[in-house]
Amino acid sequence: MRLNRIGIVGLGLIGGSIGLDLQNLDYEVYGLVNHEKNLVKARVRKLAQVISTDPKILCECSLIILALPISQLLDPHSNLIEALPTKAVVTDVASVKSPIIDVWRELHPKFVASHPMAGTIDKGVEAGRNELFINRPWVATPEETTDPEALRTVHDLAVELGSHWITTDPKTHDQAVALISHLPLFTSAALLQTLCKEKNETLLSLAKKMASTGFADTTRVGGGNPDLGISIASNNSSALLEAIKLYRLSIENLETLIHKKQWTKLHQELKENQLIRDEFL
Amino acid sequence: MRLNRIGIVGLGLIGGSIGLDLQNLDYEVYGLVNHEKNLVKARVRKLAQVISTDPKILCECSLIILALPISQLLDPHSNLIEALPTKAVVTDVASVKSPIIDVWRELHPKFVASHPMAGTIDKGVEAGRNELFINRPWVATPEETTDPEALRTVHDLAVELGSHWITTDPKTHDQAVALISHLPLFTSAALLQTLCKEKNETLLSLAKKMASTGFADTTRVGGGNPDLGISIASNNSSALLEAIKLYRLSIENLETLIHKKQWTKLHQELKENQLIRDEFL
Repeated sequence: MRLNRIGIVGLGLIGGSIGLDLQNLDYEVYGLVNHEKNLVKARVRKLAQVISTDPKILCECSLIILALPISQLLDPHSNLIEALPTKAVVTDVASVKSPIIDVWRELHPKFVASHPMAGTIDKGVEAGRNELFINRPWVATPEETTDPEALRTVHDLAVELGSHWITTDPKTHDQAVALISHLPLFTSAALLQTLCKEKNETLLSLAKKMASTGFADTTRVGGGNPDLGISIASNNSSALLEAIKLYRLSIENLETLIHKKQWTKLHQELKENQLIRDEFL
Repeated sequence: MRLNRIGIVGLGLIGGSIGLDLQNLDYEVYGLVNHEKNLVKARVRKLAQVISTDPKILCECSLIILALPISQLLDPHSNLIEALPTKAVVTDVASVKSPIIDVWRELHPKFVASHPMAGTIDKGVEAGRNELFINRPWVATPEETTDPEALRTVHDLAVELGSHWITTDPKTHDQAVALISHLPLFTSAALLQTLCKEKNETLLSLAKKMASTGFADTTRVGGGNPDLGISIASNNSSALLEAIKLYRLSIENLETLIHKKQWTKLHQELKENQLIRDEFL
């Protein structure tokens, strides 16, 4: 096993970005991709030093990052599982943790569930870019059975990539990520759906011309990759539905305040919003 | 009257930004502010060549931009009204048009209702910046009685500042702006309210650490100036309430699809969202 050799499975936005940064940090990066087409593009973009479609390239890696979509992490290829060295530390980058842990706890003795909170609208082998993780949170959800040395290795990786390290339990993680990431995706999606359902063409045509930065910002996550949305909705359903329920009460409350012209109360809530947003960012 | 002299009433984000750009375009800019404190700051920032708290400075201006909050536009100071030369063209920058027109149609013969679609979270005399209006829409809502020469003057101003010129009727304008600007503000506000109402402190504390770019983008407009929110809610109530009603149906529909695990239908709607967002931006 080579201490300096890191494997990345999947060279999309997260995997590709990790690959670029790790090469700058003088690691040997071995990247595994699923198709010949991606192989060529990933090589052109130099996302790793060695890039292949053969899982065997992972055999000497001391750390392997599974930068795969949630669906593939929940139902991993047997070829991939067999290719993971028992001595290697293995981590993932999925934004939902409980279902991942339920699968991977049995599959590998040195698995550490973790993921960086970083994303853009881009995806695929074209998306990876340098320094994506600087000053971003990187969350791990170790269990009692998690190997402490393996956890330390993933910690060191996150810190080397410039992230803030956070640990928590999987359930609290999935609830928190539902509130600050998955709920915003679906409230943003509902905003775009409202426009899809508007029938007045004159109004829509004008609205299209007038849409500006506020609209762009609030709809960015709701207009993203549908596969990611489905993956989140299907793998973090209960926390997400709980968050949507709370959200519905909030929008109904604002609607009532506007309807009843309760401007003092509305002002108070908008003021609270300013304060809580500052606490969050 | 000096053809090259433009008056700006209020040197906040919009007024101050117009002042900076117009000076670069070699206009004489006369800025009116409400307090001595703002006068000093606006002079330091050179938001206009002449800055005063006395409305009389507007007497020779050929074009006057009322860059005031909606509440002040709806209930303007008599000193200000008296100081507006009858021959000058007067426009505003309010994001709601019908109530403004109802007031100003009687107050000035050369009033043109218009506004740029541009904003940041900043406000006050510190907020103005160069080139805020480049490639942004600038919408006017002329009526049959609007002076065509005055409309042309405001058109030329918008184009000189780098904006795209759009005209429409006030009602359609207010509905469109409700959909793409006022609704996003309140859906974003509801997101922050959901967090304000969360009681689990461990969860909130983790959520705060994990909040990333998606959260920042979706909550930007909802965490802005409460006065602006109240102004929008109270002056565009009916279009906004109509938009919120449509939005509630959209979020309830998404909730049902997730609850019933109708992933094919959900995927289809998220795909629609990608397409409509591209059409809007």
